[in-house]
Amino acid sequence: MRPYSAYDSDTCSIARTLALIGDRWTLLVLRDVANGVRRFDELAGHLGIARNILASRLARLTEAGLVERAAYREPGARERHEYRLSEPGRELMPVLVAFMAWGDRHLAGPEGPPAVVRHADCGGRIRVSLTCEEGHELGERPRLRVEPGPGSLVRSLRTARAWQRA
Amino acid sequence: MRPYSAYDSDTCSIARTLALIGDRWTLLVLRDVANGVRRFDELAGHLGIARNILASRLARLTEAGLVERAAYREPGARERHEYRLSEPGRELMPVLVAFMAWGDRHLAGPEGPPAVVRHADCGGRIRVSLTCEEGHELGERPRLRVEPGPGSLVRSLRTARAWQRA
Repeated sequence: MRPYSAYDSDTCSIARTLALIGDRWTLLVLRDVANGVRRFDELAGHLGIARNILASRLARLTEAGLVERAAYREPGARERHEYRLSEPGRELMPVLVAFMAWGDRHLAGPEGPPAVVRHADCGGRIRVSLTCEEGHELGERPRLRVEPGPGSLVRSLRTARAWQRA
Repeated sequence: MRPYSAYDSDTCSIARTLALIGDRWTLLVLRDVANGVRRFDELAGHLGIARNILASRLARLTEAGLVERAAYREPGARERHEYRLSEPGRELMPVLVAFMAWGDRHLAGPEGPPAVVRHADCGGRIRVSLTCEEGHELGERPRLRVEPGPGSLVRSLRTARAWQRA
């Protein structure tokens, strides 16, 4: 088997997802929208983000289909929009919970975790875990093996294709 | 209960973790090191990253204790370093697997996922899941409830503290 570095770095589901949402502000906007912070002014105030940066992040998230925009109008005011996670956006919850679990473990102060995530149905605390199809729980430091999948791309091949296009 | 936006945005385990590793290059360096790409030149070549950016990301990851640096020397060459995940670094695997699972589902082409992650011990395919302490599997679009934890910080309080320090 070829080494990992023989495969194209960008042809990777981690790289592709990071190209879409792999920056701090985008992930914090997703966190806030997931937590019910839905309006532009409220997001800007809570995050302390420049309004032009917030607008560009929301536009990108909306265009990518991760966030849905809905119009609302308060009495006497002009129409505004609020934002909600789409279904694909809600499927990013494991990413956010995994970041949170790591931070709770390694970056929380002596007072403990800043927030607790519970199952809305039963109130039980949530954890993120890696399991395998054989039913094994992989624990905190999982032993993983990565193999090329059907959509893998060997680097030299990609270079060759770029060459043909040029 | 106060709304989510009443709590300080930076006093959050997601925000703290993102402040450390929440940029695309840092996460891609972690991905590569996790996959056995250990040497500077190999990382630079595979990622297509500028050498100064790679050096600064590796320095930050090493300083934060996520990556460990070990010296090696090839015959006739000067001493160089290679990089491995530390134990806290390996605990970030759920973050990377969660990004990958989302990308496999939403961004892979018709040919299928670029890579497959297996349990090294049994070969079973890995998935990331959210479960609660009551034993419920939360599925793809989990219903979550977030509550302030013992380390939470109400925004006005923080502003007041900053004011006292000023």
